[in-house]
Amino acid sequence: MAITLGPNRYGKAEIRMVHVDRTTPSHVLTDLNVSVALSGDLDAAHTVGDNSAVLPTDTQKNTVYAFAAEHGVGAIEDFGLRLARHFVTTPSITRAVVTIEAYPWRRLGPHSFQRDGGESRTARITVADGGEHVISGVTGLVLMNTTDSEFVGFIKDRYTTLAETTDRILATSVTAAWRHAPAGPAGDPAEATATPTAPDADWNTSYSTARQALSDAFTGTYSRALQETLFAMGQAVLGTGKGLAEVRLSLPNRHHFLVDTAPFGLSNEGTVFHADDRPYGLIEATVRDDELPEAPQAWTS
Amino acid sequence: MAITLGPNRYGKAEIRMVHVDRTTPSHVLTDLNVSVALSGDLDAAHTVGDNSAVLPTDTQKNTVYAFAAEHGVGAIEDFGLRLARHFVTTPSITRAVVTIEAYPWRRLGPHSFQRDGGESRTARITVADGGEHVISGVTGLVLMNTTDSEFVGFIKDRYTTLAETTDRILATSVTAAWRHAPAGPAGDPAEATATPTAPDADWNTSYSTARQALSDAFTGTYSRALQETLFAMGQAVLGTGKGLAEVRLSLPNRHHFLVDTAPFGLSNEGTVFHADDRPYGLIEATVRDDELPEAPQAWTS
Amino acid sequence: MAITLGPNRYGKAEIRMVHVDRTTPSHVLTDLNVSVALSGDLDAAHTVGDNSAVLPTDTQKNTVYAFAAEHGVGAIEDFGLRLARHFVTTPSITRAVVTIEAYPWRRLGPHSFQRDGGESRTARITVADGGEHVISGVTGLVLMNTTDSEFVGFIKDRYTTLAETTDRILATSVTAAWRHAPAGPAGDPAEATATPTAPDADWNTSYSTARQALSDAFTGTYSRALQETLFAMGQAVLGTGKGLAEVRLSLPNRHHFLVDTAPFGLSNEGTVFHADDRPYGLIEATVRDDELPEAPQAWTS
Amino acid sequence: MAITLGPNRYGKAEIRMVHVDRTTPSHVLTDLNVSVALSGDLDAAHTVGDNSAVLPTDTQKNTVYAFAAEHGVGAIEDFGLRLARHFVTTPSITRAVVTIEAYPWRRLGPHSFQRDGGESRTARITVADGGEHVISGVTGLVLMNTTDSEFVGFIKDRYTTLAETTDRILATSVTAAWRHAPAGPAGDPAEATATPTAPDADWNTSYSTARQALSDAFTGTYSRALQETLFAMGQAVLGTGKGLAEVRLSLPNRHHFLVDTAPFGLSNEGTVFHADDRPYGLIEATVRDDELPEAPQAWTS
Repeated sequence: MAITLGPNRYGKAEIRMVHVDRTTPSHVLTDLNVSVALSGDLDAAHTVGDNSAVLPTDTQKNTVYAFAAEHGVGAIEDFGLRLARHFVTTPSITRAVVTIEAYPWRRLGPHSFQRDGGESRTARITVADGGEHVISGVTGLVLMNTTDSEFVGFIKDRYTTLAETTDRILATSVTAAWRHAPAGPAGDPAEATATPTAPDADWNTSYSTARQALSDAFTGTYSRALQETLFAMGQAVLGTGKGLAEVRLSLPNRHHFLVDTAPFGLSNEGTVFHADDRPYGLIEATVRDDELPEAPQAWTS
Repeated sequence: MAITLGPNRYGKAEIRMVHVDRTTPSHVLTDLNVSVALSGDLDAAHTVGDNSAVLPTDTQKNTVYAFAAEHGVGAIEDFGLRLARHFVTTPSITRAVVTIEAYPWRRLGPHSFQRDGGESRTARITVADGGEHVISGVTGLVLMNTTDSEFVGFIKDRYTTLAETTDRILATSVTAAWRHAPAGPAGDPAEATATPTAPDADWNTSYSTARQALSDAFTGTYSRALQETLFAMGQAVLGTGKGLAEVRLSLPNRHHFLVDTAPFGLSNEGTVFHADDRPYGLIEATVRDDELPEAPQAWTS
Repeated sequence: MAITLGPNRYGKAEIRMVHVDRTTPSHVLTDLNVSVALSGDLDAAHTVGDNSAVLPTDTQKNTVYAFAAEHGVGAIEDFGLRLARHFVTTPSITRAVVTIEAYPWRRLGPHSFQRDGGESRTARITVADGGEHVISGVTGLVLMNTTDSEFVGFIKDRYTTLAETTDRILATSVTAAWRHAPAGPAGDPAEATATPTAPDADWNTSYSTARQALSDAFTGTYSRALQETLFAMGQAVLGTGKGLAEVRLSLPNRHHFLVDTAPFGLSNEGTVFHADDRPYGLIEATVRDDELPEAPQAWTS
Repeated sequence: MAITLGPNRYGKAEIRMVHVDRTTPSHVLTDLNVSVALSGDLDAAHTVGDNSAVLPTDTQKNTVYAFAAEHGVGAIEDFGLRLARHFVTTPSITRAVVTIEAYPWRRLGPHSFQRDGGESRTARITVADGGEHVISGVTGLVLMNTTDSEFVGFIKDRYTTLAETTDRILATSVTAAWRHAPAGPAGDPAEATATPTAPDADWNTSYSTARQALSDAFTGTYSRALQETLFAMGQAVLGTGKGLAEVRLSLPNRHHFLVDTAPFGLSNEGTVFHADDRPYGLIEATVRDDELPEAPQAWTS
């Protein structure tokens, strides 16, 4: 037996920062949850408690605040890139992953806001070995179709009790994340260099477009399986023409069971449902443009 | 020592019902969390395990579903009244409290919806001894002002370290509940009979108006204390002229601490904040129209 | 209409304090969540934003830490009394309620501990108008009997579908709180003075005894209704002979449904259950010694 | 652009099953949360809504219950293996991952139990292409040392404000998962065949030993960094001599900040701490026996 240290990382998680841009009469509010994970030459910290290569997580937290104070925030992808590029300037740190969740607020006045409790916007930025990867996404986008969903033709075995149905509620909470293709020499993603760089994307427009595509595809797809809806949503995101190479979707199937009202002498034609908590289905898939190179290192922490 | 049974109640909690009204081309979606609490002649169940006076909580659940199937839902106050009036027809049950939380959904299409994750609408209906009480409310309404809030002039003692401030973030998550005055003989709340009945209110309009009043008062009040904002919000709700007798508010003070960026050689003029989880302030008060009778029994379970 | 301010209170909630007593070789660890709610002459803060009577919630937090540093913690009832008595020395404050939740840790070594994730111990101390009330309790004590529970003989109506059963799982998460009778002139609770003072109780012993009584009563009661079990638990707590006047119990009925395995050609004699999340039954009652005076003001915030 | 379906999986998540073994006078209680994820020839479900290769998640749930009814549960690793081996007998399914979380209960009597709220035991079983992988673990094991922890010698940069300390609280919530080496022809893990099979391990003993090793290593290590403690814990698990190839640890650093009581004229020598919620450090690493082959496919869903 030869016990050795394998892959490792560390960082500060869930730095809850609110930034108020007061440079215009209408304040601009940004509400973020930022996490940092760093890797590098950290064996000595593990094996002999030598911290000389450790940038403390407390300092990482301070850096997040300081960068917001010095540079502002802007799009979360830009903020994450700025931070990740900084962290790898520490000699012992060779890889930085910055993940950000942005909570939406609705404007009520020049300096008044209401938390918009729906979906959050997410970003995951990786800077390592001179390469940069940007993943944008959304989580907590809860959608429901009250019809136009069926589930038939599935395998039946000894343990099957589920009846086929041609009309059911389809409800899910969307978590989706899409990877931006690296920009090539001539801005052509297919010509990406060996050391990809993040594209000079208009992140906010890209996000709005992709998020809308998800919602439209869910709403507009007649669903014969949640898998079919998922694939339609993935296609829609990639089809927004924004240089997206890949989208990963995780869709819980939030079951709504039609209540049996026959014992009460009442009919129930798709009207009264029990919304169940657990168990739930969980459908996960990647949809990708296979003319673009893969980048598994963009997804792993 | 004489050990006796005191006040008691029982019921089914958190019945998660989704109702789809398909009678129009555009489906109408209602998403509820319903809880029932019943009281009455239930001593024998406690003292000798005799259930002959017990309407099972399973039956209560069935009743909620059956009523939705038979009568539809409508305003949650009406749905709760219909249920509570039914439960007290059981001879052993003399008091029924139905509490409902309604989750909002935004329409995306004729049968497509997006969960609007913000505030929930609430109702609490009590039917007992021929009397009826209706309380409507809102919870989870998260509001923030990025300025126009100060906190000065407070008591200083040995344990004071807080500095006075004339500019801070004020943020809270509003839970508010307002009691509808019982309708009197001539519809005049002040002439309420000894056995009050619930008003024939337009619950949906009343809710929208009160909820907007809360938001407007928070936004429009220059705040010298969260207490001052609370009182303004309470006044605004009662001032909507909808026959409201009393409003109870619970406002956590969600602290946002200005980050000290001086060690980094950076200024921070109300720009970068740490959003803290705990501890938090908690400000609670009742605002009432003292020309109308009180009804403490409307609030206790 | 005459809009006025009604009952109100404010304070710091969820102060998470860990105290390490290092005065012995084996450290003693106390892990608390403390909340404070103060009432008094606070109208001006609400109506005109005048904070001259306000002891800031930040100061309340500091006081909790400072008292722990100066006096140690000891039993949470004693700690709460010390704090509440202090807060009412502020001239504008006439009522202080301190609630404490203590998280248990198991000792692993002289300065090593494992969080014992089970139940928490609670206390609620009220000091007002010279009177003192102490309520002790437990929450999160999850208990299950896999047999010796039945449910028969209940009301059947149009909405009944539940079958009677003579063997079911009974599971609950106990929240219980018991009020200590005020000590009288001769230490006789029945001789309590008009201005009760908290008893010179051995809080830790009292807690252990009451908590064990709850568990034993749940385990030892053949249950014909959760109400019957609740009453037995209440009797057991009051019967511990520790000067307890009243106990309030809140018992969710955590349903475990026998899975129908007949479609698979398998029997299931009380063996395989689905543990459901929602809805759940909720059984609540007070059990009291009616030879002792009531004290509703001990329970309201 | 050529949009294609990439890796995908689906299944039923969080099947909450309670199993009561009544074959002995003392009932044996097993309380599980089981999730299933299946992969295979599922393109048609995604691309054309053809479910002929889909084993419904509802059937997966039924199978979990039916297997418990027919075979009992036993060690969760065995239960997971039995299920996963079954699922891949479906022709379209080539990969099954079963994850299980077991909640501990403490015995109070022959058929009475108290939920032991501490750590949960976990298992993750993968059966694919004739190979089998078993990962066992623990989550929610919360540990604290009140001394014997320091943090000095770290990098200082422009954003550093953290002071070095030679005495601090070290607290974490352990999530650890260890991979069992596949059994070789002669039971020698190093001689594993290309198609590994799960070892005929005594899972319960293995779990107890590893879990105790984690706790002992945390308690017994003088910590100069949480990384050092993590590595010691990983070494301890692998050193239990139970054929373990690899352990992955995720340790949040739950910060306890010494309260500054100097403003109150009080000293605070490692006694009064504020337990903070967020942000927290997060330390993650793999510790492995590099004489045994790696098996990344055992960890990916």
